[in-house]
Amino acid sequence: MDFNLTFDQLLAILPPAELEGELKSFSLSGIAALERANKGDISFLGNLKYKSLVSKSFASIILLPKSYTGSPKANQIFLRIDDPSRGLAALCSYLESSLYPPPKSEIHSTAWVDSTAKLGTGVAIGAFCFIGKEVSIADNSVIGTHCHIGDHAKIGRNSNLHPGVKLLSRCEIGNDVVVNAGVVIGSEGYGFDQVEGSHKKVTHLGKVVLEDDVEIGANTCIDRARFEETRIGAGSKIDNLVQIGHNVRIGKSCLIVAQVGIAGSVEFDDNVVVGGQAGFAGHLKIGKGSKIAGQTGITKNVEPGAFLKGNPALPFQLAQRISILQKRLPELFNRFDDFANKE
Amino acid sequence: MDFNLTFDQLLAILPPAELEGELKSFSLSGIAALERANKGDISFLGNLKYKSLVSKSFASIILLPKSYTGSPKANQIFLRIDDPSRGLAALCSYLESSLYPPPKSEIHSTAWVDSTAKLGTGVAIGAFCFIGKEVSIADNSVIGTHCHIGDHAKIGRNSNLHPGVKLLSRCEIGNDVVVNAGVVIGSEGYGFDQVEGSHKKVTHLGKVVLEDDVEIGANTCIDRARFEETRIGAGSKIDNLVQIGHNVRIGKSCLIVAQVGIAGSVEFDDNVVVGGQAGFAGHLKIGKGSKIAGQTGITKNVEPGAFLKGNPALPFQLAQRISILQKRLPELFNRFDDFANKE
Amino acid sequence: MDFNLTFDQLLAILPPAELEGELKSFSLSGIAALERANKGDISFLGNLKYKSLVSKSFASIILLPKSYTGSPKANQIFLRIDDPSRGLAALCSYLESSLYPPPKSEIHSTAWVDSTAKLGTGVAIGAFCFIGKEVSIADNSVIGTHCHIGDHAKIGRNSNLHPGVKLLSRCEIGNDVVVNAGVVIGSEGYGFDQVEGSHKKVTHLGKVVLEDDVEIGANTCIDRARFEETRIGAGSKIDNLVQIGHNVRIGKSCLIVAQVGIAGSVEFDDNVVVGGQAGFAGHLKIGKGSKIAGQTGITKNVEPGAFLKGNPALPFQLAQRISILQKRLPELFNRFDDFANKE
Repeated sequence: MDFNLTFDQLLAILPPAELEGELKSFSLSGIAALERANKGDISFLGNLKYKSLVSKSFASIILLPKSYTGSPKANQIFLRIDDPSRGLAALCSYLESSLYPPPKSEIHSTAWVDSTAKLGTGVAIGAFCFIGKEVSIADNSVIGTHCHIGDHAKIGRNSNLHPGVKLLSRCEIGNDVVVNAGVVIGSEGYGFDQVEGSHKKVTHLGKVVLEDDVEIGANTCIDRARFEETRIGAGSKIDNLVQIGHNVRIGKSCLIVAQVGIAGSVEFDDNVVVGGQAGFAGHLKIGKGSKIAGQTGITKNVEPGAFLKGNPALPFQLAQRISILQKRLPELFNRFDDFANKE
Repeated sequence: MDFNLTFDQLLAILPPAELEGELKSFSLSGIAALERANKGDISFLGNLKYKSLVSKSFASIILLPKSYTGSPKANQIFLRIDDPSRGLAALCSYLESSLYPPPKSEIHSTAWVDSTAKLGTGVAIGAFCFIGKEVSIADNSVIGTHCHIGDHAKIGRNSNLHPGVKLLSRCEIGNDVVVNAGVVIGSEGYGFDQVEGSHKKVTHLGKVVLEDDVEIGANTCIDRARFEETRIGAGSKIDNLVQIGHNVRIGKSCLIVAQVGIAGSVEFDDNVVVGGQAGFAGHLKIGKGSKIAGQTGITKNVEPGAFLKGNPALPFQLAQRISILQKRLPELFNRFDDFANKE
Repeated sequence: MDFNLTFDQLLAILPPAELEGELKSFSLSGIAALERANKGDISFLGNLKYKSLVSKSFASIILLPKSYTGSPKANQIFLRIDDPSRGLAALCSYLESSLYPPPKSEIHSTAWVDSTAKLGTGVAIGAFCFIGKEVSIADNSVIGTHCHIGDHAKIGRNSNLHPGVKLLSRCEIGNDVVVNAGVVIGSEGYGFDQVEGSHKKVTHLGKVVLEDDVEIGANTCIDRARFEETRIGAGSKIDNLVQIGHNVRIGKSCLIVAQVGIAGSVEFDDNVVVGGQAGFAGHLKIGKGSKIAGQTGITKNVEPGAFLKGNPALPFQLAQRISILQKRLPELFNRFDDFANKE
């Protein structure tokens, strides 16, 4: 990191703090975990189970809960606050706005904006953006460099499309949505009819809808629906390099980790959590609050609250137990052979 | 969707239809599956096994096979035609050309086209495209915004490159090819020689060739060959986020679902079908018409017509049987222990 | 390939060679493997185990080790040299510079370069590039078309960013680095706090650092760190469509094949080799020189030198043995049933 903060600035950003210790020179330039912090760094104890790291840390300033009883070294300050994690979040938010200042609310001189597009106030359009016909972008949204916003697409308020996003025709993005670099939204679904021995593409006339507060990771792809819509529910967070097929419906507040693949027409209820590289066959229903471990292969509907692992997917505890028994297969075969020979 | 169709227009688009029922007001604005269709929607019975859904559907118009015997509700029309799926396809094709009209056959004012590039008639070049030296693009092909067409690349007739495709130098695309957004064609293969303890890149002088009627899904990557070519056979369809290594040869009419990875020099015969997230080790031969289930790991050659699953890959039926027996491992271990104790 | 070389040129490029045979007409236009080479091609015997292919090859010229004893056909030349692989590499390097000449050291007229950016001598900036504030790019680096170089980013000497790379703000690239097309470096990490039932994004203030001689494959994504850095060690080579999470640290000279996923805060020591589609859970330590087979799922720390396979990951030999025994599970269940019935 690369910032400069005075001690007074720091105290103004944090909630009220009890101060212990002294710093000779004061120049804060980084934030780091307790074990990696050096002079000039601010660190923090977010979880009491790591409290033994505090006395070994070289951080200049450490944010601590009020219950922490130790004392700072020479040339080190402890700041005790009610909730160190929230204090840290306040500091991070301040630094983010200084390290990554939002772009100016203007259309870059190199961008192409169709004359029929409607842009709200405070909208920023980056270099080399293409904004198509009848596009609408609501107030304070930011479109990064090299983005393509296809004809008739809609973007809500305070949304942020990072560089190189391709939002294809007629797709819709809500408010407070983050789309990371390189994402493709609205590509044609993968569907073919067999016609006289060749694969004839099924026309895709639908769209993709991202509800409010959704985040999409870098280079993820979301195909548009055959007729209706592929929909990502409010507050759901999707990581990098994920594949979402046509007509998929993801519920609210789901978490989908990197490289997951979801085939066409799968429906997730709310609060589903999926580990990296898991895969879902088409047309399945995934129950509310279910959890799917990384690399799992789902080929059947999933009950609400289930926790599954493996391919074929099994209840997590059973999958773990079978994994342990599999390691004992050589022993079992040997025992059985011994046993059979004795008879 | 967002279209307006009169009943006369609809009848003109469809093959000859037998009409039953009446609509009070007529305003068609969507197509939807039977169970999700509302007033104003057109729906269809594509497969007789879903015929029980017809009487419950709120669609204004339903396309049905002539053999269907029920009658429409009040304010609903049944249209019986010889092949409802073909009728639907005709309607979709009509709507596609109105919802996604092809771009004008022109070079966008912001594009950069090298003076040595040769463009056929009816070619459209999108905003911010880069068209390199000695490129040739045949009649009626469409190049989306932000595409890079490297020096000496060739593109055939009626092909469609969506926004942000990177077609690198000397690669070749046939006729009627679709390349979705964000695809990279012609990146350097992943090959290194060990030279004095470090990895020294192997030079890649070859190219990628996509034959006619190939489709490539969004953000898929196809590496160029070391010397000769990486080739995708005519009519093969590749989904999103697939990795195709250097010198791979895919036969004709293959289907490769999302997130599959194919290492260098693998050769697919024709009509191979691969489920999502399957992986292939290098230098293998994959027989004609073989089927590989999702998430399978292929490390040996595959016989023509084989159907494999799992890692290590096994014949599908055997893999299924072993999966069932694995669930019974706790029982087997317990039974064996009981048995041994009794002795 | 598409080159023209005279025999004198070829001899000048190669190390000293012993010549046997004669060519009637001389027109070299390709390099190909022994079994696929035709008239006009140069071929080579890189590994003696393929020596039986030499006498069947139609190549016009074959590079051979001095120990090879056969004789050329009519209209074919053998060139015996000390190390045919090195000879081939010299030829390839010559051809690469002619087939893929480096771009002119200039800023393309369509590029946008901020006035505060510092460019070394010999730097080439491609069409439609965006170069942000306070960026520094050292001598002889090449930035392809449609790249985004974010504010305060740094790029060393002789590095090559292919078209469409997104190098986001404050990230750093060393010398002699290759970044293939479509790569995203510096996207926000995937981290959320649960705040009153919704997922609140954790601010990511860190950066990504690629050390010298690193290569990154097409459409790969590397997230920036929460506070400090995500770092890829010198000489490490990462293939296409790989996911590297926030705060990951990859050691030196590692090889990471396509579609691997590495969750946040994982630390690789040096010389780790990972097969395609393997996945790593977060916060693990992966020992020096360990090898991880394709599709393996790593959920625990890995010892130096270990060779693991499967999910759950097991030592390679054990995993292979268990795979073989699993195929015999139907037999084991049957034998056990027979046995139990006999009692």
